[in-house]
Amino acid sequence: MAKTTIREVEDLISRLAGFNPDTMYLTDFLLTWEKSDSEIQSVFTVADILRGLRENNISPRVFDSGLGISIFRDNSTRTRFSFASACNLLGLEVQDFDEGKSQVAHGETVRETANMISFMADIIGIRDDMFIGKGNTYMRHVSNAVREGHADGVLEQRPTLVNLQCDIDHPTQSMADALHLIHEFGGIEGLKGKKIAMTWAYSPSYGKPLSVPQGIIGLLTRFGMDVVLAHPKGYEVMSDVEAVAQKNARDGGSFRRTNDMDEAFEGAHIVYPKSWAPYAAMEKRTVLYEQNDQAGIAALEKELLQQNANHKDWECTEERMKKTADGKALYMHCLPADITGVSCAQGEVAASVFDRYRVPLYKEAGFKPYVIAAMMLLSRFNDTPAVLKSLVARDSRRVFIP
Amino acid sequence: MAKTTIREVEDLISRLAGFNPDTMYLTDFLLTWEKSDSEIQSVFTVADILRGLRENNISPRVFDSGLGISIFRDNSTRTRFSFASACNLLGLEVQDFDEGKSQVAHGETVRETANMISFMADIIGIRDDMFIGKGNTYMRHVSNAVREGHADGVLEQRPTLVNLQCDIDHPTQSMADALHLIHEFGGIEGLKGKKIAMTWAYSPSYGKPLSVPQGIIGLLTRFGMDVVLAHPKGYEVMSDVEAVAQKNARDGGSFRRTNDMDEAFEGAHIVYPKSWAPYAAMEKRTVLYEQNDQAGIAALEKELLQQNANHKDWECTEERMKKTADGKALYMHCLPADITGVSCAQGEVAASVFDRYRVPLYKEAGFKPYVIAAMMLLSRFNDTPAVLKSLVARDSRRVFIP
Amino acid sequence: MAKTTIREVEDLISRLAGFNPDTMYLTDFLLTWEKSDSEIQSVFTVADILRGLRENNISPRVFDSGLGISIFRDNSTRTRFSFASACNLLGLEVQDFDEGKSQVAHGETVRETANMISFMADIIGIRDDMFIGKGNTYMRHVSNAVREGHADGVLEQRPTLVNLQCDIDHPTQSMADALHLIHEFGGIEGLKGKKIAMTWAYSPSYGKPLSVPQGIIGLLTRFGMDVVLAHPKGYEVMSDVEAVAQKNARDGGSFRRTNDMDEAFEGAHIVYPKSWAPYAAMEKRTVLYEQNDQAGIAALEKELLQQNANHKDWECTEERMKKTADGKALYMHCLPADITGVSCAQGEVAASVFDRYRVPLYKEAGFKPYVIAAMMLLSRFNDTPAVLKSLVARDSRRVFIP
Repeated sequence: MAKTTIREVEDLISRLAGFNPDTMYLTDFLLTWEKSDSEIQSVFTVADILRGLRENNISPRVFDSGLGISIFRDNSTRTRFSFASACNLLGLEVQDFDEGKSQVAHGETVRETANMISFMADIIGIRDDMFIGKGNTYMRHVSNAVREGHADGVLEQRPTLVNLQCDIDHPTQSMADALHLIHEFGGIEGLKGKKIAMTWAYSPSYGKPLSVPQGIIGLLTRFGMDVVLAHPKGYEVMSDVEAVAQKNARDGGSFRRTNDMDEAFEGAHIVYPKSWAPYAAMEKRTVLYEQNDQAGIAALEKELLQQNANHKDWECTEERMKKTADGKALYMHCLPADITGVSCAQGEVAASVFDRYRVPLYKEAGFKPYVIAAMMLLSRFNDTPAVLKSLVARDSRRVFIP
Repeated sequence: MAKTTIREVEDLISRLAGFNPDTMYLTDFLLTWEKSDSEIQSVFTVADILRGLRENNISPRVFDSGLGISIFRDNSTRTRFSFASACNLLGLEVQDFDEGKSQVAHGETVRETANMISFMADIIGIRDDMFIGKGNTYMRHVSNAVREGHADGVLEQRPTLVNLQCDIDHPTQSMADALHLIHEFGGIEGLKGKKIAMTWAYSPSYGKPLSVPQGIIGLLTRFGMDVVLAHPKGYEVMSDVEAVAQKNARDGGSFRRTNDMDEAFEGAHIVYPKSWAPYAAMEKRTVLYEQNDQAGIAALEKELLQQNANHKDWECTEERMKKTADGKALYMHCLPADITGVSCAQGEVAASVFDRYRVPLYKEAGFKPYVIAAMMLLSRFNDTPAVLKSLVARDSRRVFIP
Repeated sequence: MAKTTIREVEDLISRLAGFNPDTMYLTDFLLTWEKSDSEIQSVFTVADILRGLRENNISPRVFDSGLGISIFRDNSTRTRFSFASACNLLGLEVQDFDEGKSQVAHGETVRETANMISFMADIIGIRDDMFIGKGNTYMRHVSNAVREGHADGVLEQRPTLVNLQCDIDHPTQSMADALHLIHEFGGIEGLKGKKIAMTWAYSPSYGKPLSVPQGIIGLLTRFGMDVVLAHPKGYEVMSDVEAVAQKNARDGGSFRRTNDMDEAFEGAHIVYPKSWAPYAAMEKRTVLYEQNDQAGIAALEKELLQQNANHKDWECTEERMKKTADGKALYMHCLPADITGVSCAQGEVAASVFDRYRVPLYKEAGFKPYVIAAMMLLSRFNDTPAVLKSLVARDSRRVFIP
């Protein structure tokens, strides 16, 4: 994409002021549907501004010291590097909290640990996506603990949280995805009436989290899009999130579900084919893990892999792509994708489709560091437009110029 | 606690000048009893100043680059984050040296490794607390190695060491604890004549280090306090450290030992009930580990757990708390505590007692990052009052203000 | 060594300008023999300048934010800390990419991963030295991926690579070694006609990489030195690298091979006795690992250890040292060395020889952080002399001065 000019950055700052983003000051970012439309737009706008500043070699460093705590309860490469990049861009140093699972067995310890690691923390980023009913709840416990710690005078500052993926939502992913669409379709207005197929796709692996499809239907329904959630029977997502999508859709867009992948692709402007595990199975799995029922876990895994194997035809093929609008729907994925004949014998997407969309896919991922940095900035400053204006005026270089 | 004003920060800097803290320049902080009273007071004062600066959004960053090396030979959360916070506050980047135990099997390699990791290191923080006669000795080997490396022209700067817990002392903990008391009792003068019960308490776990009780009796006896060390027979600490406590106590305070927990609590203004392993058992264990005698280790563990179980009545109960001064002694702990009915069936402290003191306990822990930063600053600058005065004058913001 | 004066730093900057170092802008540093003589001299000169700046407490921080990605596919202490120090010195934050081997099984994933971790990366440092034909190739895949990512608009900046040791070369080591020699022999001119014995030595361990001897013969033959590569029959290095050494030697120096350690030491001004595995065996081993042939790997290990044991007399003894020029050849090693009677019963070098050269050995290692920082700086700026001149003029302090 073309480099943003300083003039454009200044225009974006003016637009940001119109969203009155102060409501995000000292709030966590846990679920997109807890945020107002103005707040969502503020994040997009600040992300674009931060990228514009960096493109113009203007440092947006707003912290001289301070920690960004990361708690990854699952593996992560993309989000880990995005979080680290965002912290570094703003001047925070990442300190990873590598907790044993036993340490957080009861709320008591969450409360204590949250305070112990937060004495000099401005931001806490958490990924906890594997167990239904747990991840988001854990984040709220941490948030309450540090809010209380601050009120009690234990913490000088109250760190704010960024959800780096939970059992319900993956807001840094869905927001990055949406910002990608905004750029591809010429602004948020350009998304109105566009059809997106968020569809299940076959993968030879098992137990992939639900947070991506849920995040997508919970967010993109806000922009007047026609959102179709497609999956085989038995692969239902959380009904609460479907209800959110339905509610959002009342303001102009639409949301519906189908069990037919072809129907979902028909006339779609965007397709997002991706594997996930059935919600009901993930719930069952959570209980089995709680009971440490290894035999049960193994049996469930076998059952789920067999269930997946019944739907090998759910693949994003060239043939299916032809059904989309002008045969040219934008293909999206959170990466890494299971690519047929490349990363597995049969997977979510045909190699030729994936190859054709490689550059936009990589760009899609590239929005994440800026989206995270925007969430951080908006939660740490109560007059973000003024801060950004001052940063432009300060004109510190990210990279030294002789 | 109330936010420190800039005026108060300046007063603290004036007071610091009176302690002539230059004697700490380029020295390690390994044992509190190797430091003069002025030096101890300097650390407290600089810690308060650094907190005051941070509360006033003044950055105390004194390093533009440089490494703070951490060597954790045991697990750590609290101290790890405190060290990271302190380094970050002053501008050093933490680089963790994750050594295999085999690498330091002989002095040769300690000497070499210490130099190899120190080319751009200003500070080295070490935790090595599990083996009697080892941890503090190891720190001195590292210190000698880098001193020699500097003298030989290998290292441009000589990094100074901070003991992050050894087999003998835990100075960053005891100093944070003491600073907490100073704030709770209205200044260091307020500690005179106060009775503190540093007592053993029952825990279902085994082999907890001796460095906390040793650190407490070795430090708090300096302030004119009446320090009582209480434990069941067989749970003696290092006699050398008891001798330090006795010697300190000659200057106004007192030190004595009892095998009666109730007697220790009687009229106490402060209680610090905490489990530890007997010194003799820890010595035995060290030998067994050296001989890699797994059967012996298992047998000793069993023996020690049984020995602990004979003293389940050593618990900080509400009843015992009633025996303290006005029934309101300040309860202290280095955390995490073994809380009866919460983290274990029976432990060091009743849940209701712990709950009542949660806020002061968390605040107690919050002094550690500042204490460590103070130790660092005092060891890296030979005119700390001038440095701090300049930092106030420089008035750089920790967090950007538009 | 004596502290560099600012005047000397300025002279070095003038000399640097004469090398026209702009050719290194946005290039990787993968093999020393891909670099021109001017480029090699530029690295030495910038390394000396950066040290001079640091010695004068002038910060060479040129990045306000940005990441230095490290990928260590083998263990490392020295190089890891050197890379971290170099990044920190210039203002980059190290973010370690801890990849599972499976993730990079095919080029597809290398391409994707390289982009995903590089959105805010200025530098990527890679160590991948264990498998013949793999490490350097992997680095080139990563380099191509990020170059393509930048061309496609995925990456705002194109990160440049530093080879932190591969199967072919270990340029940060050989360049640090060479800079050490330059300082010991009074400048690069002082190396002309000096004899260096790069010789195999016995070690009780197996499978040590070839990159050090290959790096040394591939680099030091450029400076008009008489380079002798000595090893028992069967311990041949890559013939391609020997060809490089031969070609280099045409410009004044010489390169030859011998199977006689004594002959190599005869009249040598410098000796570098170090164990390595035969190239042919390393090739065989690579295939066995690819086939996951555990029995074959175990058999090969046994065979190689036996082969090593036939050459226990290849040790750098006092007696052999007496054969060198004036009996005072400079002893070199990349560390850690296998020292007879210290780190093993019998090893590469006698304890008394090692002890006598400890200080120069440690100094040798101390050049590495500066060499890496120089490689980084030269690859990130297209007018390095101007940048360095500006840094002198900026006169920011590394350590605060009140």
